[in-house]
Amino acid sequence: MVTSTLGVEDLVAARARIADAIGDSPCPRSLSLSERYGCRLHLKLENLQPTGSFKGRGALNCLLMLPPEERARGVSAASAGNHAQGIAYHARSLGIAARVVMPLGTPLAKVSATRRFGAEVVLHGSNYDEAYLHARELSDQDGRVLIHAFDDARVIAGQGSVGLELLEQVPDVQDVIVPVGGGGLIGGVGLAIKERRPDVRLIGVQSAALPSMRESLAAGAIQALPPAVTIADGIAVKRPGELTFPLVQRYVDELVTVDDEDVATAIMLLLEREKTLAEGAGAVGLAAIHAGVVDVQGRKAALVISGGNIDMTFLSRVIERGLVQDGRLIQLNVRMTDQPGCLAALTKVLGELRVNVLQIEHNRAFRHVNLGLTEVELALETRGQEHVEELRRVLAERGYEVHD
Amino acid sequence: MVTSTLGVEDLVAARARIADAIGDSPCPRSLSLSERYGCRLHLKLENLQPTGSFKGRGALNCLLMLPPEERARGVSAASAGNHAQGIAYHARSLGIAARVVMPLGTPLAKVSATRRFGAEVVLHGSNYDEAYLHARELSDQDGRVLIHAFDDARVIAGQGSVGLELLEQVPDVQDVIVPVGGGGLIGGVGLAIKERRPDVRLIGVQSAALPSMRESLAAGAIQALPPAVTIADGIAVKRPGELTFPLVQRYVDELVTVDDEDVATAIMLLLEREKTLAEGAGAVGLAAIHAGVVDVQGRKAALVISGGNIDMTFLSRVIERGLVQDGRLIQLNVRMTDQPGCLAALTKVLGELRVNVLQIEHNRAFRHVNLGLTEVELALETRGQEHVEELRRVLAERGYEVHD
Repeated sequence: MVTSTLGVEDLVAARARIADAIGDSPCPRSLSLSERYGCRLHLKLENLQPTGSFKGRGALNCLLMLPPEERARGVSAASAGNHAQGIAYHARSLGIAARVVMPLGTPLAKVSATRRFGAEVVLHGSNYDEAYLHARELSDQDGRVLIHAFDDARVIAGQGSVGLELLEQVPDVQDVIVPVGGGGLIGGVGLAIKERRPDVRLIGVQSAALPSMRESLAAGAIQALPPAVTIADGIAVKRPGELTFPLVQRYVDELVTVDDEDVATAIMLLLEREKTLAEGAGAVGLAAIHAGVVDVQGRKAALVISGGNIDMTFLSRVIERGLVQDGRLIQLNVRMTDQPGCLAALTKVLGELRVNVLQIEHNRAFRHVNLGLTEVELALETRGQEHVEELRRVLAERGYEVHD
Repeated sequence: MVTSTLGVEDLVAARARIADAIGDSPCPRSLSLSERYGCRLHLKLENLQPTGSFKGRGALNCLLMLPPEERARGVSAASAGNHAQGIAYHARSLGIAARVVMPLGTPLAKVSATRRFGAEVVLHGSNYDEAYLHARELSDQDGRVLIHAFDDARVIAGQGSVGLELLEQVPDVQDVIVPVGGGGLIGGVGLAIKERRPDVRLIGVQSAALPSMRESLAAGAIQALPPAVTIADGIAVKRPGELTFPLVQRYVDELVTVDDEDVATAIMLLLEREKTLAEGAGAVGLAAIHAGVVDVQGRKAALVISGGNIDMTFLSRVIERGLVQDGRLIQLNVRMTDQPGCLAALTKVLGELRVNVLQIEHNRAFRHVNLGLTEVELALETRGQEHVEELRRVLAERGYEVHD
């Protein structure tokens, strides 16, 4: 592990070193989100990187800095996500053998992507820590260089190139908002931005489920938290790094947290308004603005959308939850007379209102209704809140008793 | 309606005219899709335009070419989708009053977006034709200029700017693949590309559900088809335009069709691999490559991803269908002894295999099984095909009888 003190010149060198494979990611201004939040908002789209996240920057910079004898021995990493893909993809492009240890429960899509990028994947352990320990053991045996996901100066320097690009793309930026897990990204970006533009406000965002960096800042020393599950799994890190923590202490102005509900809304907003797919960790910056824990009113702000590697199964659930919040998916219980033809009458009303029926459950025995009445449970697709209100009004007019 | 003969100079003028509001859309090379299909594939990302599709180009060019007295009277349009948003957004930016007639069943998200962009929205008619007739009647009454979605030379010239940009962004392009509805986009792009680079192969893609342009080309004259429903609703046009049809006859080398299944897969691929959201019409080019009806093996190809305005309710269904195809969502019927504890034993097996249970139905009366046996219907989330095979094997080993 390289532990020397980093300077902006290391970031400039890293950016030049990786430039052939990793060009500047786009940083467009979002018209729709700017209008919505009363600011000028730019999105630094690291989700469009070849491996779907910024992690390739640090991985590639580190690989390129390895001496020839270490390259020849091959490299190793432990990761359930983006670091794995970054190492696998860039190691292959350089002809370096890569082994990635992933926890047993890793979604198949991530395992497949890592294998497709050419790495040997070892599935081991029930969480990241167990996978990391196994990767260390394997490296001790065969001498492969183990590349840490964030606590390595070469990796931090690579991630810092995001900040250098951002200052060029949005020279008048006032606020930069960055997701925080182990601290590799915000450490590098902080160094890039604050050494050149100390007036810029740097805001870090963590998941409220696992605020290890915030707790560490509050305590003035690195704290380890118990593991926790969050939508923002890419930043669910239990303990900041030894190298990253001092950088965060020095450069970060504010560190806020967001809950999963706001992250889900932010993923939906980015998809529906910006046509771009962010993973949970990539959406925390927008979640913080949406939740009001970061105030960008009237400011020129840039959000780092750090990655887009979200499981489709999971995305489908995030969208469904968003639709329920918008009233576009609803569940209603309707009481009515238990006679032939009554269900036909009800569904006719739904058809007239252009409400789409997804599911009907008609269960007499378990409903606490009078004999002679029945209750049906409807899952419905509507055109939104106004449509739902119209539906409720018409059902009431026709004499149906409706419960949520 | 302007019916003069279009030349490349009109497209160049249109591009310059709209440049302040509509910059070049990105056209990145897709590493993952290039590898998958054995070609060099670029994506022209019109889904990232301010209104989520290329339609703003033609709308704005037309608005800018209106004489002052027409601007003062205001404009009108009929559309259930992207043309509505293009007109609304750019009319507001120019201070022109806009009225858009949309069919009654238009998803609320599109109605809201059009209203948010500042247009007066009139909901009328059960389909596009009825909405268009109503828009004509209203325009006849108040003298507003009715701007057609594709059969207008000013609109076609605006859409053609996509082709001019593409030739600059991918100078060595060999194949250009473009979605085809009314023919405004491919007409303009065809003019841009073929007049400058006649060696480039221009391929149009329609939905197999409504191949009005292909039928018209085959007949040598404009044909009208009955309406049809397709995922690619943005190109579900029953009749090519009078101006666009001759352009397509002159410039298009091949016109292929794709079915909804392949369009759904293409939407998933763009989302999962490219982190970009395409609507059905925007994904037909990739669907054509995926289905093998366009061969780009070894070629330098560019796909126009024409828009990204897809309803989230609909997207959630597209993803679910993709997950079922991948084996990540499955439904299994399992027979077992009907005794207390049996369901607990089954769910324990599922838990050990890390299979997530979404739904269990346990219905004795309607299953054709022997008394003493029961059948449960399981909706399960897995990590993919391999995981499903492991599940089936383990269930069989433990003595469960499994049916699909």
